[in-house]
Amino acid sequence: MIGRSTFGIDPWQVREPRLDLDVLAQSESVFALSNGHLGFRGNLEEGEPHGVPGTYLNSFFEERPLPHAEAGYGYPEIGQSIVNVTNGKLVRLMVDDEPFDVRYGQLVAHERVLDLRAGTLTRHVEWISPAGRRVRVHTVRLVSFTQRAVAALEYVVEAVDAPVRLIIQSLLVANEAVPTGSGDPRAAAALRSPLVPVEQDAADLRAVLVHRTRASGRQMAAGMDHRFESPGRVQAETRAAEDWARTSFVTVLQPGQRVRLEKTLAYGWSSRRSQQALRDQVASALTGARYSGLDGLLAEQRAYLDEFWDAADVQVEGDPVVQQAVRFGLFHVLQAGARSEGRCIPAKGLTGPGYDGHTFWDTEAYVLPVLTYTAPEATADALRWRHATLGQARHRARELGLRGAAFPWRTIGGAECSGYWPASTAAFHLNADVALAVDRYRTVTGDDSLEREGGLELLVETARLWMSLGHHDRDGRWHVVGVTGPDEYTAVVADNVFTNLAAAANLRAAAAAVRRNPDLARMLGVDMEEGASWRDAANAVHVPYDPELGVHPQHEGFTRLPEWDFAAHADYPLLLSAPYFDLYRRQVVKQADLALAMVWFGDRFAWEDKARNVDYYERRTVRDSSLSASVQAVVAAEVGHLDLAHDYTWEAALVDLRDLHRNTRDGLHIASLAGTWIALVNGFGGLRDHGGTLSFDPRLPQDIDRLRFTLRWHGRRLSVDVEPDRATYLLRDGSDGSDGAGVAGLRLRHAGEDVTVEAGVPLTLPVLPRAPLLPRPPQPPGRAPAARPTPSGPALL
Amino acid sequence: MIGRSTFGIDPWQVREPRLDLDVLAQSESVFALSNGHLGFRGNLEEGEPHGVPGTYLNSFFEERPLPHAEAGYGYPEIGQSIVNVTNGKLVRLMVDDEPFDVRYGQLVAHERVLDLRAGTLTRHVEWISPAGRRVRVHTVRLVSFTQRAVAALEYVVEAVDAPVRLIIQSLLVANEAVPTGSGDPRAAAALRSPLVPVEQDAADLRAVLVHRTRASGRQMAAGMDHRFESPGRVQAETRAAEDWARTSFVTVLQPGQRVRLEKTLAYGWSSRRSQQALRDQVASALTGARYSGLDGLLAEQRAYLDEFWDAADVQVEGDPVVQQAVRFGLFHVLQAGARSEGRCIPAKGLTGPGYDGHTFWDTEAYVLPVLTYTAPEATADALRWRHATLGQARHRARELGLRGAAFPWRTIGGAECSGYWPASTAAFHLNADVALAVDRYRTVTGDDSLEREGGLELLVETARLWMSLGHHDRDGRWHVVGVTGPDEYTAVVADNVFTNLAAAANLRAAAAAVRRNPDLARMLGVDMEEGASWRDAANAVHVPYDPELGVHPQHEGFTRLPEWDFAAHADYPLLLSAPYFDLYRRQVVKQADLALAMVWFGDRFAWEDKARNVDYYERRTVRDSSLSASVQAVVAAEVGHLDLAHDYTWEAALVDLRDLHRNTRDGLHIASLAGTWIALVNGFGGLRDHGGTLSFDPRLPQDIDRLRFTLRWHGRRLSVDVEPDRATYLLRDGSDGSDGAGVAGLRLRHAGEDVTVEAGVPLTLPVLPRAPLLPRPPQPPGRAPAARPTPSGPALL
Repeated sequence: MIGRSTFGIDPWQVREPRLDLDVLAQSESVFALSNGHLGFRGNLEEGEPHGVPGTYLNSFFEERPLPHAEAGYGYPEIGQSIVNVTNGKLVRLMVDDEPFDVRYGQLVAHERVLDLRAGTLTRHVEWISPAGRRVRVHTVRLVSFTQRAVAALEYVVEAVDAPVRLIIQSLLVANEAVPTGSGDPRAAAALRSPLVPVEQDAADLRAVLVHRTRASGRQMAAGMDHRFESPGRVQAETRAAEDWARTSFVTVLQPGQRVRLEKTLAYGWSSRRSQQALRDQVASALTGARYSGLDGLLAEQRAYLDEFWDAADVQVEGDPVVQQAVRFGLFHVLQAGARSEGRCIPAKGLTGPGYDGHTFWDTEAYVLPVLTYTAPEATADALRWRHATLGQARHRARELGLRGAAFPWRTIGGAECSGYWPASTAAFHLNADVALAVDRYRTVTGDDSLEREGGLELLVETARLWMSLGHHDRDGRWHVVGVTGPDEYTAVVADNVFTNLAAAANLRAAAAAVRRNPDLARMLGVDMEEGASWRDAANAVHVPYDPELGVHPQHEGFTRLPEWDFAAHADYPLLLSAPYFDLYRRQVVKQADLALAMVWFGDRFAWEDKARNVDYYERRTVRDSSLSASVQAVVAAEVGHLDLAHDYTWEAALVDLRDLHRNTRDGLHIASLAGTWIALVNGFGGLRDHGGTLSFDPRLPQDIDRLRFTLRWHGRRLSVDVEPDRATYLLRDGSDGSDGAGVAGLRLRHAGEDVTVEAGVPLTLPVLPRAPLLPRPPQPPGRAPAARPTPSGPALL
Repeated sequence: MIGRSTFGIDPWQVREPRLDLDVLAQSESVFALSNGHLGFRGNLEEGEPHGVPGTYLNSFFEERPLPHAEAGYGYPEIGQSIVNVTNGKLVRLMVDDEPFDVRYGQLVAHERVLDLRAGTLTRHVEWISPAGRRVRVHTVRLVSFTQRAVAALEYVVEAVDAPVRLIIQSLLVANEAVPTGSGDPRAAAALRSPLVPVEQDAADLRAVLVHRTRASGRQMAAGMDHRFESPGRVQAETRAAEDWARTSFVTVLQPGQRVRLEKTLAYGWSSRRSQQALRDQVASALTGARYSGLDGLLAEQRAYLDEFWDAADVQVEGDPVVQQAVRFGLFHVLQAGARSEGRCIPAKGLTGPGYDGHTFWDTEAYVLPVLTYTAPEATADALRWRHATLGQARHRARELGLRGAAFPWRTIGGAECSGYWPASTAAFHLNADVALAVDRYRTVTGDDSLEREGGLELLVETARLWMSLGHHDRDGRWHVVGVTGPDEYTAVVADNVFTNLAAAANLRAAAAAVRRNPDLARMLGVDMEEGASWRDAANAVHVPYDPELGVHPQHEGFTRLPEWDFAAHADYPLLLSAPYFDLYRRQVVKQADLALAMVWFGDRFAWEDKARNVDYYERRTVRDSSLSASVQAVVAAEVGHLDLAHDYTWEAALVDLRDLHRNTRDGLHIASLAGTWIALVNGFGGLRDHGGTLSFDPRLPQDIDRLRFTLRWHGRRLSVDVEPDRATYLLRDGSDGSDGAGVAGLRLRHAGEDVTVEAGVPLTLPVLPRAPLLPRPPQPPGRAPAARPTPSGPALL
């Protein structure tokens, strides 16, 4: 278990002051480096010990049969699993013939630092070998944001108090043994020896290995190149075999002397291009990286991140834990999405094998809303990937007897890979999540190009899906029945509020986009009647309400279901000790569902209903999903439970830095990491964009003194500085891209009032306290938010 | 496809006048012989050609892993599959060195007859070998009702027009190759070489093979013994190897001469007893059978069946097809249940590998109601088997977080083996079906002993299950939500009418049984309060009703679901071309559900509601289950659609004789075969036993001139003779077991009027026509009942 002292609390880095092998797998996830195309887990350079070795290429997966105890029509038969590809992080060190291994000899010091501004993982080790030789090892690692096929590593060894003979082996290794699954359905299916050797090439200090996946025949290549500096004589050689390549250096150091190895790595894969093209592509990436050199790559990396942080940073005064966590989260969200270019953003990014490397609705519903405001080009890329899979989604809709497009609940390549339809195929809201991400991109960026490139088609095809899923009843109301909403502890229900409102928003957005693009719409076969039918259905949408309780049932009938016996079930997550049938029929909520509806479609709810809904669902929500806490934070803040919102923010923020769900070993929870931003900016900042209007309703909890954040709106940077009694808006760009003096201001809403912010002119407005309608609600026994340290008491975690 | 001419129409036999290899697998099911303990498919003696070779021992199964694409708590991990055991039916014949094989040479004549009174399968063949040798082969086969471990075979060969040298090999063969599954989820998972040899013994003309199942280690033994009569010199030898034993006879016949082989077979299995005990048990069964001889076995067989038919026969004048079918059905129902003694009655009896040999709710809901009135001891046996599995059912309930006992949806040995919980675990009505079978047994037989032996415990534990499944709402009504009713095209719904009424009946029956047996109830921990809580819940049960339509929704909200587009789906069964999610959310019904509620709990429905319900559900029921037609027949008859009821009777009757579901090859539909009796006796006879009162409301359709049936009520035989305008009741036993003169009569209800029938005194009462409230309803396009031949027109099938 990651404890309070595993990582230091620093504003711009995650520092591990000493090595704790009990949380090695977790720290490998926390220290993962990725650019969205290539991902390295934070494995030690020497390879062992390890928790879960991991090197990933986005969308490089293997196929495997999906077994079903009882077959059914429309069940996917083929699964996809991310492959642990050739490991290029490996550098082994022999000190006077003894291997450097932290488990032997004496580990005098061991520090690792993930630097969120440099984009590097560094390591400082002082080690005395079993024979008594003392060395210092210093490494720096990066996966380049600017050269997406490239990673690099610096490996420095210093002799401390006696002469040592060093042998340094730099490796590429394919088909590393990976741990078998834990039996927990959330962990990935382990794949054994998935790679078949295709070609090996070694010359001078350079080597390339080409492999292909055993079943599906996807090809990949990994290459390495080296520079080596030593004060003494050096002998080097390179060899390659089917599953490994090795460059070895031998030298002798006197006390105080250092050797420095610079290792450059390049990766590529393709399911279409030839083996030769792939080999040459990797060679060219290596050549380019060598041209930049490690210093060049480090400089590019920092410049890239400087630009990102300039328009994305969030500052939290008064809570250094959340301060660190929100930057950690934004860094990993960026790493997941920065260069995914035409590929998906998996739920765990490229940080681990969890969920088989699949992408879910998390991306559109949690990750993209953050990227849209902070790195919008990554959002556009992710949505272009969805559009690229539209053919498969259309096919799936046909298979299911539906019109339009039905996107997969879980996939890497675009085909549905889920094995349990009530919690996947039936969760059609995913399609609205995709459509609304398209709509939100245009709203926030003001950029119409995505809509014309494919966004309109996504909106139209998802609207058609909803029209074939929904129906009018005999009283003219429009329903969606037999589907599953975000809460996975209810399934296959009628009129899930979130789903119905999301479907209606999808239909309205499609109708509006069709009106904006009549030419393209005609090409998609949309006529006036079809667009009108979308608006009509959206206007007739049924939203269940329980007038006796003054509460919205999460779905029709929810508030009349039997209650869950919380006292009888102390083990969480409940799904590991209770059958679905019992979870489904009771009032127990896995994750924010109606809460998410109240955030996304907040203008459809009266404030008093929101307050009662929060009170009702807080008592019944167990947060067995990491997607829940951030949304609960936002609604709690909105109805005035600011300290509760702060508690949830803390939980969302620390899901991985404290391993709250006990599966960080399998990879990070990218959506929950995005959720820290959501909790702070949507929650305490009150950011909303209902109806295309940028609005804020900021209000700070007791223990946060000041909250500052920057976001992009229509290409302009807007900084918001919230203090307990006031908020200051600063528009940092003009509408013409200048620094803004004299050009048009930005209209936004503050606490319900329309105001205009002029570029370069800070606008300070008052923040008024709002009393909650109801007292702070309790959570189910044992499911209060993970205890947050407060000025008056110690943290429990 | 079985056609109209495949089998002749005879009142007491099923005769196949010529061999049609295209329906060989189907005829093997139709001609299966079984006593409920041992089952032989109707495979040809020479073994080849075959459709599906099959020899089964009740509950002799193998275990195998059940794979799940996504694991879930409470999913069964181990499946059970019936094993094709050592085949003793095999007799191979060489005619002058050419093997007798119907595919070669010339088949001059080939007739097989299943005799429903003799309990035998006979075969007459005249064959000319490729070399021109003409022989006649005559066989008789039986599986003994009176000696349950025993089967026997007579094999007679006659030389017709030239001398022939004959070699006759009689075999035991284990691990026959069986065809692989068809991909249809209804077919069984094929098991390859499931048997491991344990011991072989051969001496004189006798051999025994002992095997065990590979994974689960169940042991079985099969033995054979022979008598051989020939006019010429005979040489015989017996050999045994691991997977076969063979006794060979060589002789020469002159034209007109015959040889006769009498083969006696014995089988046994055990999961507990030793190899030696099993071997000796089989040897002793062989010895006993040899003592009886074939003639003795045949005589016992006929006497057993005479006694059965005397109190079970149904005579249908005017419809010879249904006349044959109802006897064929009763014969197979008897074969499935007669000697199952302590084991389950599988859905396919012991006639084929379909559904892996599992038992389902069919047994308690369709088969036992018929056996209770015709062979009640078989019902008691079957319910004793359920009681024997109570420990497993209690364990399963605990695993699911429930109290009481939760019986498996599908099993052989008592453990849940289903792979898809929404259509299995959630179908909790099975537990009420079991409980109500217990209650019905006592009602119909007047025998209290089963209740005291274990029936009370079944009632109490199922009542406890319902109390933990159901809940009271804020208005005091009692609901069961999140469960699946009989209709498998809706699942996991609230307040399925059948389930709610069955649960309430279960609770009332348990409460009444507790009152009858206070001593036993105390030992089960039932106090006054618990019994009262059962009655209270039953009295508060919620039964949904749609007042706008005047119709009962099958479950809450059903009548407001979107309609199914029947025109767009022409392929049946729908489950092979439509996803569950779409079936579940629409108004399409796989099988009788509300209809079954109206039969079982008919006193809870007004007649007008029944009429409207029939009209509503007929239009939406596709009968993709063979369990449907018989129940639809009963409700159609009740609301006055007598010709429609006759059509459904015809469909239920011919499900296997015409292979209407195209899977008769995998075994017979025992419940549908029972359904022919249900359609006739419950439908046209109007038999009900609501509230423990025996009642009839007979009424014949146009094309049935007279319907006569006998049933047992409290140990007495009651014959009912229905003509178009009157019904005559004849009580054939006195209450003291005598022929009845002078002892107490039987009170029953005829057409709503209470009457008393005196033993031995026919009572004739008028039958009055009842006009239906509504016109005959249509079925979904293409799903009208399988066309019945009428006097005015030809049959379409």
